[in-house]
This record gives sequence, C-alpha cells and structure tokens, in this order.
Amino acid sequence: MELWYTEKQTEQFGITAKIRETLVTEKTDFQDLAIIDTLEFGRMLVLDGMVMTTVKDEFVYHEMVAHPALYTHPNPKHVLVVGGGDGGVIREVLKHPEVEKAVLVEIDGKVIEYSKKYLPEIAGELDNPRVEVIVNDGYMHIHDHKNTYDVIMVDSTEPVGPAVELFSKGFYQGIYESLKEDGIFVAQTDNPWFKADLIQSVNRDVKEIFPIVRVYCANIPTYPSGLWTFTMGSKKHDPLQVDETKIPEINTKYYSPRLHKAAFALPKFVEDLCK
Amino acid sequence: MELWYTEKQTEQFGITAKIRETLVTEKTDFQDLAIIDTLEFGRMLVLDGMVMTTVKDEFVYHEMVAHPALYTHPNPKHVLVVGGGDGGVIREVLKHPEVEKAVLVEIDGKVIEYSKKYLPEIAGELDNPRVEVIVNDGYMHIHDHKNTYDVIMVDSTEPVGPAVELFSKGFYQGIYESLKEDGIFVAQTDNPWFKADLIQSVNRDVKEIFPIVRVYCANIPTYPSGLWTFTMGSKKHDPLQVDETKIPEINTKYYSPRLHKAAFALPKFVEDLCK
Repeated sequence: MELWYTEKQTEQFGITAKIRETLVTEKTDFQDLAIIDTLEFGRMLVLDGMVMTTVKDEFVYHEMVAHPALYTHPNPKHVLVVGGGDGGVIREVLKHPEVEKAVLVEIDGKVIEYSKKYLPEIAGELDNPRVEVIVNDGYMHIHDHKNTYDVIMVDSTEPVGPAVELFSKGFYQGIYESLKEDGIFVAQTDNPWFKADLIQSVNRDVKEIFPIVRVYCANIPTYPSGLWTFTMGSKKHDPLQVDETKIPEINTKYYSPRLHKAAFALPKFVEDLCK
Repeated sequence: MELWYTEKQTEQFGITAKIRETLVTEKTDFQDLAIIDTLEFGRMLVLDGMVMTTVKDEFVYHEMVAHPALYTHPNPKHVLVVGGGDGGVIREVLKHPEVEKAVLVEIDGKVIEYSKKYLPEIAGELDNPRVEVIVNDGYMHIHDHKNTYDVIMVDSTEPVGPAVELFSKGFYQGIYESLKEDGIFVAQTDNPWFKADLIQSVNRDVKEIFPIVRVYCANIPTYPSGLWTFTMGSKKHDPLQVDETKIPEINTKYYSPRLHKAAFALPKFVEDLCK
C-alpha cells in the first residue's frame, strides 16, 4: 500500500509526497497539527493542512528569516521570535554570539512539545540557556514590551487561523514600538505567485510605519510555488548598505555573505508588487 | 468529476494540477507529448511526463535562458537555440534588436507544430523573418556549423529520451567549436535539490572546455523543487563584469538589469556543488 500526503496549495494546485508514516495528528487549542514522515523530505510539520517545515529543506526558511536581519543590525543583543515553535529560527539566531537573549513567543505549546519530540534537529536549541520560551499570544507580548528588542522575527503560518492578526497593520505598529530606536523586524510574507495581493498590502502597511522597507526571496521546495518572500522593516539600518566583506562565513547551507544583498534583487514581477 | 494531472518529480514527490481538459496526447517519433489545460497554470506542454512549460510561468524560464547571455555578449548577431520547439526562448531572443538571425534546431517537429497550434502566446514568433526553424538533431547541427554562432542556448528536456546526448561532454566540446571566438553558451541544468549530481558533473565538464563558467538560478513553480539552474560557458565575456547600468529596461516579467548579477549569487549548497 502506498500512502501519499497531498496538500492543495491553491484550490487547483498542490504537492504530493509519499509517506512512511503519520506520527502525530492532533487538534490543538489553536489548529490542526500533524507530523508526517515523508520519503523525499523526511519528517514534516503540518499546521492546518500547510507544510510548515521539513527536515530536508528547513534550513532555507530558518536561515533566511534569521541571518539577513542579524547581519544588518550592528549589535543585536535582544531578539524576539514570534511564532516559530519548531525552534528552527531560534537555532539560527544562536549562531550569532552577540545575541545575549532570544525570546520565543509561540501561541501553541503543542507545536513546541511535538517539535522537541519528533524534530530534534530543528528544535534542539530551545533549551539553550540564552533562550526564553514563552507560550503566549505574540500580539499581546509585543504590546507589553515597548522599546525592548533589537530584532523581531515573525515566523508565522500563512494568514489563516491564529496567524491572521500577525499580518495586520496594528501588529506592525506594535512591532515598531516594541523595537529599540535602531531596531529591525522581518516577517515571512508568503509567495508572489498565488498571494500577490498579500505581499502588496503588507508592503504598503509596513511602508507607512518603517522608514526602510526591503523585500527579499528564497527558494523553499515544499512551500507554494517554491518562491518565498520576506519583508524587512527597519528604523535605521539598511540591509543594502551592509559591507558584505565584513560578514563572517558561518555554518549555513543557504545564506552566505555573497547572497546577503543578492537576495533583495527581486524578479521583476515581484519588484513591481513592492512599488 | 474532478480531473487532476499529477507528475512525479521524483519517485516520492510530485505536483498535482486540476485540469479543464487534455488537448493533445501523442507518441511522437521521439517522446510522449501532451498538452493539458490546467486551471492554475493555463495550458501546459508535457514531454515524457515532465512539464516543459505553462502559459502562466513560462516567462521565467524563457527570459532566464535568453537574457543573461545576450546581455553579456556585446554584439550577439547570430544565435542558435537547441531544442526549445515551443518557441519561448526564440521570442525572448528577438527582443534584442542586434540579433540578425536566430536559428532554432528542434529534433521533434511535433513540438513545434502543437506549440504553434495550442500555445500561440509562446510560439507566436517562430514565423518571424529573423528566425530560421530547422527540424534536426542539435548535436549534428553544431557539428556541421563550426565557428558560426555568437550565442548558443540549450533548451532541452531533462537528460532522458532524446536529450541525453545534450548533457554530454562531447556536446559541450561541439558547442565550443560552433561558437565564434568570443562566443557564449547557456544550458538549463536542472535543479539542485533532486539532481545535485547532474549539476556537479556538467559544471566539471564545462570547466574543462570553457575558461569562464558561471551558474545562475531562477524560480519556476512547475519545475521540480521550484529552483532551476542554468550553466553558462563563455570564451571571453564574463556575465559578472557586465555594467548593469548599461542594460536597457526591456519588456520582461522576471529578468531585470538589477537581477543580472544577483541571479549568479547562489544558495550556499548550490555554490558548493559548483566548486
């Protein structure tokens, strides 16, 4: 018997992956959670029917959320990750020795629990002493922590379920206030092939709040279209003004100093969305 | 009744697209050919069970085969496209007014015939007077045309069926000899997620023949992994030495002057394949 996991990425297009076994399926207080072992991508975390991460390609997303912002900020000591309960972004953040404290605020404790159990390659650093894990609503957390963080990373699901508010202008305003005076934030902002409207509206909202707004892309095979965007809002530091020759070679598989600025060179149809 | 086209991109992973109707299925002298009308990507050309192009995303592949090489060569008058019977690369080549003649050598006349009939947005320029269409084996053609072309583009299927020889070192040597003294060639070289070995071996082969070898990437949602590589071999001109400010803004949706060099900044794991 062959078992396949099929995800409709749009109403009329999807991916399908042969599976060894289903390890978890659970309705948590916030969403449907599944962990599936696939032959091509290894173990896969699925929330509300959408692939969040897989063992094989997780490095792309996690590196590309963490490093562009952390190599743009000259001295990121206090970092907040909103969402990201699988721990992958935290693992990348900890590669920066100047980060003294990385706070993870994940609304769904079950994501953390199952990631630690079934995805240790990804979640393994959540117990690091430089990390504080808080199970709470990210929206509330930033509201209660003004002028606190050097860098805030929004590692959310797509804007359905608990993540809807994480794509609102009020949230970006809250992030602005939660950042210190030279703070930077970055958020995953979906794909330009099927969600062009979302990228456009986020871009417009963030531009009304942050003086410097930049969008960059990365390839993630298990995400819809394979092309993912990230939107960065910055109060002072511009990722395109970074001296790439001063970025150290760290242990990565996707990000590199040579890719730092190049990732911001967008396909023309994506560039046009962000005008 | 819902009809879906499912393509196994590897033995254990694939894409699936809802279809309106199947327009063509035919066993030609060289391969299985199908044209399918999908809801998400419009009409789709499928050869030997692999998506070649779709109306929605074809611009990425065709622009990214044509423009990086043509904006690297200072005066590309004579251009050869090997394969590419759908005519998409030819359409992009003709956007360069300095190209006097573009020769298409496609082994399978049926690809040309059905593309003209069912994919006119893509194939529409094949009757342009600057184009010469030859139904023949590309390998033989380059063998018979030494020192002839300024730029050669290899728009082949993946290395199965008739395209196997188009990934051989003998073919790259033939291309070298078919190019003029400052000629450039570019080939699609599959994806780094599932075909890392192929990229590596092509890179090694091409480096033994051409003094300048560069690899670049583009995102193509309907191709395996969404991340596609292209390998460029050049006798004299280096795409990374081009003055991007002198590249004109032409009518494109993916390529842009700002992307010209950035496309060559590779994800680290791809960069490592090309060392």
